[in-house]
Amino acid sequence: MHLKQRLDRFCESAPKRLVQAVEYSLLSPGKRLRPVLCLMACETAQGDFQQAMGNACALEMIHCYSLIHDDLPAMDDDDLRRGRPTCHRQFDEATAILAGDALQPMAFESILEGALSPSAMVESCKTLAWAAGIQGMVGGQMDDLLEENRAQMHPSGLSGSQVDQESPENRLGSIHRRKTGAMIEASVLLGAIAAGATTECRSALGRYGRGIGIAFQIVDDLLDVESTCEKTGKATGKDAARGKLTFPGVYGIAQSRQMAKHWVAESLAALEPFGKRAEGLGQIAKYILERHS
Amino acid sequence: MHLKQRLDRFCESAPKRLVQAVEYSLLSPGKRLRPVLCLMACETAQGDFQQAMGNACALEMIHCYSLIHDDLPAMDDDDLRRGRPTCHRQFDEATAILAGDALQPMAFESILEGALSPSAMVESCKTLAWAAGIQGMVGGQMDDLLEENRAQMHPSGLSGSQVDQESPENRLGSIHRRKTGAMIEASVLLGAIAAGATTECRSALGRYGRGIGIAFQIVDDLLDVESTCEKTGKATGKDAARGKLTFPGVYGIAQSRQMAKHWVAESLAALEPFGKRAEGLGQIAKYILERHS
Repeated sequence: MHLKQRLDRFCESAPKRLVQAVEYSLLSPGKRLRPVLCLMACETAQGDFQQAMGNACALEMIHCYSLIHDDLPAMDDDDLRRGRPTCHRQFDEATAILAGDALQPMAFESILEGALSPSAMVESCKTLAWAAGIQGMVGGQMDDLLEENRAQMHPSGLSGSQVDQESPENRLGSIHRRKTGAMIEASVLLGAIAAGATTECRSALGRYGRGIGIAFQIVDDLLDVESTCEKTGKATGKDAARGKLTFPGVYGIAQSRQMAKHWVAESLAALEPFGKRAEGLGQIAKYILERHS
Repeated sequence: MHLKQRLDRFCESAPKRLVQAVEYSLLSPGKRLRPVLCLMACETAQGDFQQAMGNACALEMIHCYSLIHDDLPAMDDDDLRRGRPTCHRQFDEATAILAGDALQPMAFESILEGALSPSAMVESCKTLAWAAGIQGMVGGQMDDLLEENRAQMHPSGLSGSQVDQESPENRLGSIHRRKTGAMIEASVLLGAIAAGATTECRSALGRYGRGIGIAFQIVDDLLDVESTCEKTGKATGKDAARGKLTFPGVYGIAQSRQMAKHWVAESLAALEPFGKRAEGLGQIAKYILERHS
């Protein structure tokens, strides 16, 4: 993954404690779904996956920062992540906030120190900034928290909020298109950009990314209801306890499973034009449906 | 400043409460030192300041996010900023964390939606990412907190930390070169890059930036000792109470004032080759010495 080498280069003269916190979180045993999607999308689009390495590491850095901040006491207040204490439990809250803050510019550095042309770098950075930003991932996290705290929060903050004016189905869809979907779609697109893919090819890969993004979230919600802490490496059953809007909560378990299958089938359909070259991406789509953690 | 227009464009479909928190902080009455430095440096380097507008807004966005996060209860725990309640006091902690998180990618978007060539965008983003990152501003904030909490923190986190092995003078210099200095130097450089300035011209402007960066911090520390809350719009006298390493604390008030003067003189010397074109930057250097808030 080259994550460790990149980290070392970007952290040369940084405070040790902060580097330890970033390493602890970034190099923890995760699925690396986003970087893998990026590298496979690059190969599917007939690029050399080495070209996409800077982009792939950037995606994991943004994902990692979002986990560190989401786990904070003021946010989801989680003690466990990937089977280990969360960053603020292992270090302290200030260090965790700063570790997350440091990972954002590091992600952009990772793209900008990569092997792409300036215009491919610009496009990669734009795509990542949008997906990670206020209209993408961060916006989704805010909507998710607003759902949770609807009753407790100051009414003036909520009046006129989009999350209040729509049906639960629409609100749920909108939250997850932003919160998880945007970054998963961006993962595939950052691979396609690195490969110099045509607009047509990018749009097909984008459709694949949107499909698995929503399927991934549905399965995540199902795992929270059905799985155990040992399997997922994090606390389970917390979504319902918090009053989160979830797929099983809105649609029931059986229909949620059907929906996940539908979106995976939709993703696989998007891959058809690529034939055998898209085998890896196809396997990821199927894995998402069958994963247990 | 075009800040508001940019915000509106970047926040079109974002959650209202989050947009309110970002607007509250970003559009609050600040000095806009970093954007002004950027635009003036661009003109000094014979560029059109309009070209640098995307870069200028990016600098204010990064600066604003750093203030929001520094004010959090787990960090400096401040209730007042620019004479108004801090973001987490006006909204809540989760919203403040997310508002800060959203401003980082927005800053990169601001550069990338600007008027520069792809390679000037890449260089601007690299310079900003470095200055805002783990070896720059965030690293400086970590060192600053470590100084404050030396006694309380877990010893294993501190053993071998750079801040422990050096003299107070060196530690103080290192903290502020990162914490304030890096972003002030980057402000000038982002203007120079936008102007397409020569290496020689950039290096002179960089020297100017480093000088006013350190002078700015010395005066900030002096104001915390000597000024009142009404003048600065934030709580004063808190540095000493927290055990922060400050210039007046290490060097005394009289020598600190001398040092600020020295660094402003050093900055003005760096501007000499630019003659009359650098008048604006020269005035800022003098203003930094004389400011009262």
